[in-house]
Amino acid sequence: MAERPIRDFFPILVWLPNYRRQDLAGDLNAGLVTAIMLVPQSMAYALLAGLPPEMGLYSSILPLLLYTIFGTSRTLAVGPVALVSLMVASTLGHLTQIHPEKLAQAPALLALMVGGISVTLGLLRVGFVVNFISHHVISGFTSAAALLIALSQLKHLLGIDIPRGINVIEMPATVARQVGRIDPAAPILGVLAIAVLLFFAFRLPTLLRRAGISGTAATALGRSGPLVVVILATLAVTEIGLDVGVVGKLPTGLPPLTVPSLDFALIEFLAGPALLISFVGFLESVSVAKALASRRRQRIGANQELVGLGVANVGAAFTGGYPVTGGFSRSSVNFSAGANTPLSSIVTAVVVAATAAFLTPLFHDLPKAVLAAIIMVAVLGLVDIRTLRGSWRYSKADTLALVGTFVSVFAFGVEIGILIGVGLSVLLHLWRASRPHVAVVGRVPGTEHFRNVKRHKVEVSDRVSAIRIDESLFFANAAWFETWVLNHVADNPEMRHLVLICAAINYIDGSALEAIERLEEELCNAGVTLHLAEVKGPVMDKLEAAGFADYLGPARIHISTHAAMSAVENSAGLGCFQSSRASSSSTAS
Amino acid sequence: MAERPIRDFFPILVWLPNYRRQDLAGDLNAGLVTAIMLVPQSMAYALLAGLPPEMGLYSSILPLLLYTIFGTSRTLAVGPVALVSLMVASTLGHLTQIHPEKLAQAPALLALMVGGISVTLGLLRVGFVVNFISHHVISGFTSAAALLIALSQLKHLLGIDIPRGINVIEMPATVARQVGRIDPAAPILGVLAIAVLLFFAFRLPTLLRRAGISGTAATALGRSGPLVVVILATLAVTEIGLDVGVVGKLPTGLPPLTVPSLDFALIEFLAGPALLISFVGFLESVSVAKALASRRRQRIGANQELVGLGVANVGAAFTGGYPVTGGFSRSSVNFSAGANTPLSSIVTAVVVAATAAFLTPLFHDLPKAVLAAIIMVAVLGLVDIRTLRGSWRYSKADTLALVGTFVSVFAFGVEIGILIGVGLSVLLHLWRASRPHVAVVGRVPGTEHFRNVKRHKVEVSDRVSAIRIDESLFFANAAWFETWVLNHVADNPEMRHLVLICAAINYIDGSALEAIERLEEELCNAGVTLHLAEVKGPVMDKLEAAGFADYLGPARIHISTHAAMSAVENSAGLGCFQSSRASSSSTAS
Repeated sequence: MAERPIRDFFPILVWLPNYRRQDLAGDLNAGLVTAIMLVPQSMAYALLAGLPPEMGLYSSILPLLLYTIFGTSRTLAVGPVALVSLMVASTLGHLTQIHPEKLAQAPALLALMVGGISVTLGLLRVGFVVNFISHHVISGFTSAAALLIALSQLKHLLGIDIPRGINVIEMPATVARQVGRIDPAAPILGVLAIAVLLFFAFRLPTLLRRAGISGTAATALGRSGPLVVVILATLAVTEIGLDVGVVGKLPTGLPPLTVPSLDFALIEFLAGPALLISFVGFLESVSVAKALASRRRQRIGANQELVGLGVANVGAAFTGGYPVTGGFSRSSVNFSAGANTPLSSIVTAVVVAATAAFLTPLFHDLPKAVLAAIIMVAVLGLVDIRTLRGSWRYSKADTLALVGTFVSVFAFGVEIGILIGVGLSVLLHLWRASRPHVAVVGRVPGTEHFRNVKRHKVEVSDRVSAIRIDESLFFANAAWFETWVLNHVADNPEMRHLVLICAAINYIDGSALEAIERLEEELCNAGVTLHLAEVKGPVMDKLEAAGFADYLGPARIHISTHAAMSAVENSAGLGCFQSSRASSSSTAS
Repeated sequence: MAERPIRDFFPILVWLPNYRRQDLAGDLNAGLVTAIMLVPQSMAYALLAGLPPEMGLYSSILPLLLYTIFGTSRTLAVGPVALVSLMVASTLGHLTQIHPEKLAQAPALLALMVGGISVTLGLLRVGFVVNFISHHVISGFTSAAALLIALSQLKHLLGIDIPRGINVIEMPATVARQVGRIDPAAPILGVLAIAVLLFFAFRLPTLLRRAGISGTAATALGRSGPLVVVILATLAVTEIGLDVGVVGKLPTGLPPLTVPSLDFALIEFLAGPALLISFVGFLESVSVAKALASRRRQRIGANQELVGLGVANVGAAFTGGYPVTGGFSRSSVNFSAGANTPLSSIVTAVVVAATAAFLTPLFHDLPKAVLAAIIMVAVLGLVDIRTLRGSWRYSKADTLALVGTFVSVFAFGVEIGILIGVGLSVLLHLWRASRPHVAVVGRVPGTEHFRNVKRHKVEVSDRVSAIRIDESLFFANAAWFETWVLNHVADNPEMRHLVLICAAINYIDGSALEAIERLEEELCNAGVTLHLAEVKGPVMDKLEAAGFADYLGPARIHISTHAAMSAVENSAGLGCFQSSRASSSSTAS
């Protein structure tokens, strides 16, 4: 690996020394706007994860500061997000059933492990493995997760008690059993809050723009819905005396220093979830970072992003937080409110810290139903119908991966569900590649061109057959291809020469090389001589390294199909035994 | 699916009605020779599987007959084989630790499940999934299995007691503890038997050929080693009174009718092993069948082979047998002894049946050490050094898959070991494909050709960049490619047009389509117009189905790189917004 400059590891060394005074206004404004959005959202997501609300605040201070040092995105806003919070909730739900006594230590240790895994993947520069989760698996996973999240908020919205870790299928019965005990205050407040939030998100910006307010300001005001409902609902409790479940007493002060305990049994239990949370969190974050960076032609380093997010999570682990990543809506707000550099995240962190230090008493009378409403509206946008519709038109295999993941998440939970989705998408990919298109080609009369005999009027011969495979050869299709060729030979008893056109072969793996070598021998036994044509440079290099190019000899490797067919026609008696020893000076490359 | 003729499902309807009298002599001879080899071998493999010797004989009667009806190979010899027997032994070893009371029912149920899985895969025509186990994983697995098999025979060779299901690592200690109790008779006999077998296999054919005996006869005599040592060793016990562990009383008679009991807990336990045994058994069998069939230009139907082997296993389940498949050495013997049609297998089955019915008392005094020697010599040939050596030269990834499987089989046992190998080979394949070669190309001065700027002296422009990706685009490389392009754009601030050369792209999956659509948008936001050139027909069909070809419009899709570059240079102001709405009649395909 080449020596890399120190600033590659500390992106802050790039942006801070070059800080321009004219960027300051935008950064201050964006930092403040993002903080106003982040405070209620981070508390709501902590509740979603089954944790006390202040852990959401704690997760939005040091992690943000650390990301500005190590992250490569200029405008990504880090903190608790919905998907990761749901995965944490699921992990804690399973833990309750096995080691309930270890519940308190779990969030910090989980954040530490997510951080450790991310940093390790990033430093080893193997972040690309994260991409093995296909877009369609993520889409199915996210849609299912959004619905699960919405369902999980029913307990706060209805003011009833649903135990942690309960199954989706048991949910209706649990709700039905308590339906008599529901106090209408919470649901009414929740539905009102949802209505206000939807109005802010979808109608207000349009109305404001019509009233002549600038697009950016209108969008920013549209995003202030959560703050508005939080204030209104709190006032309803304190001033009108509305009686609903409230957040209650929150500790006041800066985040505590927490040292994750290295409990081996707990580490073993959390290993799988930590890996999945690292992957899902990174995928969400990097796609947001990429989209925003591209608008200003800025670079994103995928591996350094893993380091940045990883260090942020380590920070969360030591300051009373839980796993974090870059969030979609909050980063968009940050970007459109004018953020130019990570300084805006420093501003956000300072505002959240001030909130935790001094303002938590204000949240004592905040109804939980309102936080549930904020979550429900936030995850609405995660239900992804567009990808489903697009994939149905484009590829049934991708659709199957998407729907399979969606169903599996409901049937088996978030962790197993996404693993099934990944397995399915890999299987479908191998399946597609395992039955490549193979065409028998013939000469277009009077030309040097060769085309599929099924689609064009072409000349063919009984003695010589030319076939073209439209795929690289590797283990998943090597045996299939070998069988295809042998059956083709069995069907054409007069055949003496077979020309394999390799123009579409980008690589040949070891299994496929083995299959081709065996095929050559089998063809030879059947009295058929194998020729290769149009072999690409890198493939030829490999065939030479393996000695197969030498074994075939230049008389059987041809620069074009036309050259191959001419050579074969001009050397009627040339068999596989003779040619492999001949050292002809033919058309070989 | 097209209607298929009935004879596709019953290959016997093809070969039997067309039976030629001149094939009879060869079939009779080959059937007899194969039986002579199969009788001691099948008893030895049953012992290897931890089962009574007669189960080996029972597995070599009805399964052979059924395969002649349903199998597509003319010369494959079916029966117990070493690899499958080892996997059965491992499965039974695990079962002993969990449900020892179900041990007796397990072999028949396992054969039934292997049969059911194989028939199902075959009828659904999804036999290709078996190929997802790469050649190198199989090679590593087979080599490790051969050594495990040889080790497992130590107990018979030394005449000591090694409990079922013991770990390789515990083996030396277990042997050491009993070393004082070893009676030298068994080891001496075993080593002598190994020497005779090696002589027959490797020296005798050469000596016989030098003495003027025909090659085929010499080979057949070389294969009679097992029969010879069985006879000699039995005589040593009965005539000289040699005192070693013998096979003992075997039941006399045709195989019993056994009805596998459908115990749900046992089915659940056996499901994984049954799936792996189906796969491994099929892979071994079909590779032998393919090699033999190719020499006579006969067809092998992979899916019908699954049906044939599956029905054979169902037959084993109902006649006191255990899982079977086509064996390598025995099929070679059958082929070289002159088998022309599956009639030879019918002859073999009849001879084995006669042996089971009348001759089992002859095996009473057969020393177990001799059967162990037969197995040890038979599996010697399975240790595959050649593939290891070849892959080291050709591909480090394949080598890693091979060695990883080998080590995993020793460390975690045969089932987990092969699964780790399969996972490893799929990961390595995705890894390779996830970082494709991408080249920035420029015009070779004065030509219409474009070449890699790093390798050739070519003309490039600051405003227009042409890049070529040498790989299909799919989920594992879509995000990587998107990032690569965005970073390329960030590094070239003057760029206004980007031409993507698609000549090496055989397909674009849904994730990659999504990435390209997003990339187009991101490039557009950055002021760069995306063009496609040299898109292949099938890929173009897909892009049209998805509406992306229409979206780009004919002005941005070009038949060649030259056409793309000319179009871009002639339309200096053309941006992505304008062109997507233009309906130019340009060079598009």
